[in-house]
This record gives sequence, structure tokens and C-alpha cells, in this order.
Amino acid sequence: MSSADDSVVVRFVTEDDKDGWQRLWKSFQEFYEVSFPNELDDFNFKRFLDPTVKMWAAVAVNGLSGEIIGMVNFFSHMSTWDFKDKIYINDLYVGENSRIKGVGRKLIQFVYEEADKLGTPSEYWCTDESNHRAQILYTKIGYKAPKIMYKRNGY
Amino acid sequence: MSSADDSVVVRFVTEDDKDGWQRLWKSFQEFYEVSFPNELDDFNFKRFLDPTVKMWAAVAVNGLSGEIIGMVNFFSHMSTWDFKDKIYINDLYVGENSRIKGVGRKLIQFVYEEADKLGTPSEYWCTDESNHRAQILYTKIGYKAPKIMYKRNGY
Amino acid sequence: MSSADDSVVVRFVTEDDKDGWQRLWKSFQEFYEVSFPNELDDFNFKRFLDPTVKMWAAVAVNGLSGEIIGMVNFFSHMSTWDFKDKIYINDLYVGENSRIKGVGRKLIQFVYEEADKLGTPSEYWCTDESNHRAQILYTKIGYKAPKIMYKRNGY
Amino acid sequence: MSSADDSVVVRFVTEDDKDGWQRLWKSFQEFYEVSFPNELDDFNFKRFLDPTVKMWAAVAVNGLSGEIIGMVNFFSHMSTWDFKDKIYINDLYVGENSRIKGVGRKLIQFVYEEADKLGTPSEYWCTDESNHRAQILYTKIGYKAPKIMYKRNGY
Repeated sequence: MSSADDSVVVRFVTEDDKDGWQRLWKSFQEFYEVSFPNELDDFNFKRFLDPTVKMWAAVAVNGLSGEIIGMVNFFSHMSTWDFKDKIYINDLYVGENSRIKGVGRKLIQFVYEEADKLGTPSEYWCTDESNHRAQILYTKIGYKAPKIMYKRNGY
Repeated sequence: MSSADDSVVVRFVTEDDKDGWQRLWKSFQEFYEVSFPNELDDFNFKRFLDPTVKMWAAVAVNGLSGEIIGMVNFFSHMSTWDFKDKIYINDLYVGENSRIKGVGRKLIQFVYEEADKLGTPSEYWCTDESNHRAQILYTKIGYKAPKIMYKRNGY
Repeated sequence: MSSADDSVVVRFVTEDDKDGWQRLWKSFQEFYEVSFPNELDDFNFKRFLDPTVKMWAAVAVNGLSGEIIGMVNFFSHMSTWDFKDKIYINDLYVGENSRIKGVGRKLIQFVYEEADKLGTPSEYWCTDESNHRAQILYTKIGYKAPKIMYKRNGY
Repeated sequence: MSSADDSVVVRFVTEDDKDGWQRLWKSFQEFYEVSFPNELDDFNFKRFLDPTVKMWAAVAVNGLSGEIIGMVNFFSHMSTWDFKDKIYINDLYVGENSRIKGVGRKLIQFVYEEADKLGTPSEYWCTDESNHRAQILYTKIGYKAPKIMYKRNGY
């Protein structure tokens, strides 16, 4: 397992990754019990590749098989609390068969490094209260903010 | 009190509101035990007034005295979950002496209405777990999302 | 209001308080959207008065009108973490018209004092996550334990 | 692993289990970063064996090696919400090397069964907010109560 582990590479998506990314994106939606139209996939992927849009996606690739086994989507936004933008990790997903291999950690680590390069090192992300498997990782690679989120009714 | 209440008007900030807004912004920082440089106040206020930047501030004004008694700062950002942007209410503050008058509710209501006009009706905001006074209002005007927020260590 | 406040007296229930206590106990049930049979009221009140049962109730009485305006029910139980028992505040309720007068605080304070006399000074209690009005008081008179409670399905 | 799994037996402690139980009890304390005097261990074990005290302990035993690999301590207490007592699972611990084998589940299941026999089927227990590993199990075998716990300052 350690060799498989070492061979996982995380990199930004390219035009060719659309299918692999979309497969994980669909699994991600199933996990969260939501369903988006394919047009949104296209719109997202276009934004990931557009250098004028501060939204990105990276994938974790099994170096041996070439298979895309994980994805992370993130973007940059303003804040009144800082001159610098913040990076929000919108989505993180690792294929069911590739868990417990440090893939999730590598994906977040990739975002940290890219955020540092961008000069906007502040990142955050959210997860469901009940997603304890994810939180075992998150408490190792970040910290729980003592915040409660409220939303407008109906959204 | 009801006449005072009725006379509260919420509107976008103008150039002339800088001092009144800044006074509340400073009180807000005290409340959250943070302290930002004055340059950030200037930068924020510039963004509020710049029509090319999707960051805004509104103030609640006592119609009788003309005093600024509340403020709300919000901005728009992308999401991979939607074609439309989402509105994040970054800061909400009502002067200590103007609480329990529905001012906080009017400020959020103002954001809802402006968001509808913008075509991006989805809003959300955060508060401290321990800010129960605010949450009494928030549970009436929105709903608690079952989310946990994580941040990168050091940020 | 301060004189009314001063005149609130908290004391253990006596045989004569059954009706006043039961009235609040019913309001308490409405608040929590539960409904217990009258037989349970009888059983509880019997336990409160039985010196061999470590379950007690105290009431807050308006010294001017003699009206019972608040109640607290509590009992003692073992713990593997201590030689001493712990006191659990099972129910706390203040009549809707008597809130914001420090009645809730006086009731908890009464339990603290009685617990000290019993030699079992450790108290705890629970409330609904969404009961922010109560938590404004609780964060002043105690602290939030970083605990999550789980229950058997169906109970 | 399935044979090892099948061979795990959960049963009430007997006089002879003191050392094995105490070893896990000490590990449990390390995990929770607390430290109790040995006299408390003695007091607890005495209560477990005393038929007049409604406090019990059960251990999970590896059927092949005879080793005690898990423990659960629980007791019964009154409630104003029911004629029947409730069972509180005070402590649950599985040895570090015996996790992911269903031992924790078997221990809770044992308590459920004994509680049913006692006629007090309502159980609950608590865990640290940050103990996500435990909560992966607890969400499967029970449900999260929407409760917040408060404690008296200093306890």
C-alpha cells in the first residue's frame, strides 16, 4: 500500500480530465444526496480552465493505473476582514475504494500550497456535522472553527 | 418605541456614511475581540462604493435622530453548486442601545431584497456558536445549516 | 421591577405546592412538546417529598403575590468518575411572564447551594441546541461541556 | 478476522476480572487525559459486584486468547420524565489494537440487552464532540440527541 500511496499525484485538471472529474463529481452528489444538471458540470469545468476565473479543480491520480481517484474544487473570494482574498474548498471527494490512503490529505495539502503561491493562504471548508469519517481527517489537517452557519429559508 | 421602530430606515451606504459606519465597525471588532487597521476600513468602504466590486454595505438609520444604529456588510461569490452566485453576509452589527427593536431583522431583510433584485437570492452567514442573542434572531429569519466549518491552522 | 425581583424566594416544594408546581410542569411539557400522564406528576411529587429518595423540586415564589413562577426538578446519581454523586438538573422552567427577572438564575443558584450542603457540588444539565434564550443564561451561570449525547434508537 | 470477531464474548465482570478491567480503565483515563486514584477503581469495582448497587461493568473477552479487550461501565438513575429509570453508559473503551472489529458495538449491544431484561430499556451516553472515531459507531447504533450539556463552573 505504501508504494501505491507514494504514487498518488495531485495536479490541476486539464481539458482531458473532464470525464474522470465528472465521474467523481457525480459520486460526490450521490453522497450528499443532491443532483445537479450536466450543464452545471460543463459550467464548472469551463470555470476551472478559464485563467480569468478564480475557481479551480485538482485531481488525485493513481500513478500506476492513471485513474482519477480524488477531486477538490475551490475558489477565491473577498472578505471584509482582510485585504487578501480567502480560499474556500467547495468540494472534496475521494473514490470509495481509495479512502484511508491519505488521498484526501494530499488534496487539501495541494490547495494549501497553491494558495500560498497565490498569496492568499487563508483556507476554509465545511462538512456535514454527521460526516465523522471526513472530520477524522479534518481535525488533523485543520481545526474546527467555533462557528454556526445560517441560511435564508428555502436556500 | 413602535414609532422609533417604524422610523428605522435601511439603505446602502453613501460617501457621507463613512464615519457612522466606521464607528459601528469598530464596535463590531471589539465585540469579536479582533482589531483591524484603519487601512482595511478604507479599503472596505472603497469596495462598498465601487460599482465594479460585488461587495456592499447597508446601514440602519434612526429616522428621527439621523443616527446610524446598525450596519451589514455583504458580498457575492461563486459556487460550484449553482450557476448563480451566493450572497455571504460577512458582518452584521447593531449598536448596543438599539437592540431588541428589530434592527437586525431589518438589515437581513434588506440583504434578502437586494439579493432578489440581483438575481442571486441564496444568502448565508455565520456566527459564533456562543452568540445566543444573535441566534434567537437568526432562527426566526433563517435556519441553522447542519454544517461544521474547518480552517487551515494559523488562519 | 427590582423590588419585585428582590421579593422572589426560592424554596423546596411542600405538600401545598402541588397545584402550582403542576401548572408549571404542564407548561414545561408544552414548551418541549411532550405530554406526560398525570400519574407521572403524582409519582414525581411523591419522590420530591420522600426523604429517602434523592430527587427534589424547588419553586420560585413571587413574594408579593405568593404565586409560583418558576420550578426546578433535580436528582442525585452515581458516577464512575467520582466517589461523590452528581446532581442532574432534570427540568428548569420559569413562567412566560416572569422571564428576564433573574428567576432562572435564582433557581440554579438554589440547586448549587443545596448541592454544596449535600456534599455533592457537581451539577450539570442539558438543554435543546436551539434553546438560545436559555443558553444566554446558562453561559453566564455555568459552561458548555464539549459533549455530544447519543441515545438508543426509539428512546 | 471474522473468526476472531465471532469469538469475542461480552459478559459482566467477575471478581477475577479486576486486573484486566483496571488495565483498560487506566488506558481510558489516558485517552480522556484524566487521572483517578486507585481507590476509585476499587470503589467502582466494588459497586459493579454489589447486587444492591445499580452500577455494572461488562468486558469484551477475546475467546481465543482470553484477553480482556474492551469494557463498558453503566448505571441506572431516576428521571422525572418517566416512571422507569434510565441507563447511562458512563464509560466505553476498546483496546487500541482491537478497534475496527465490532467490539464497541458488541459492548453497547450487551447493555441494550441487559437494560431490556431490567425493564429499563432507555439508554444514553456521551462522548467528546471531537471524538469522531467513536461517533462513526454511535450514529450506527444510536442517534445524536439535539442536546447541549452545561456544567457548574469548576466541575
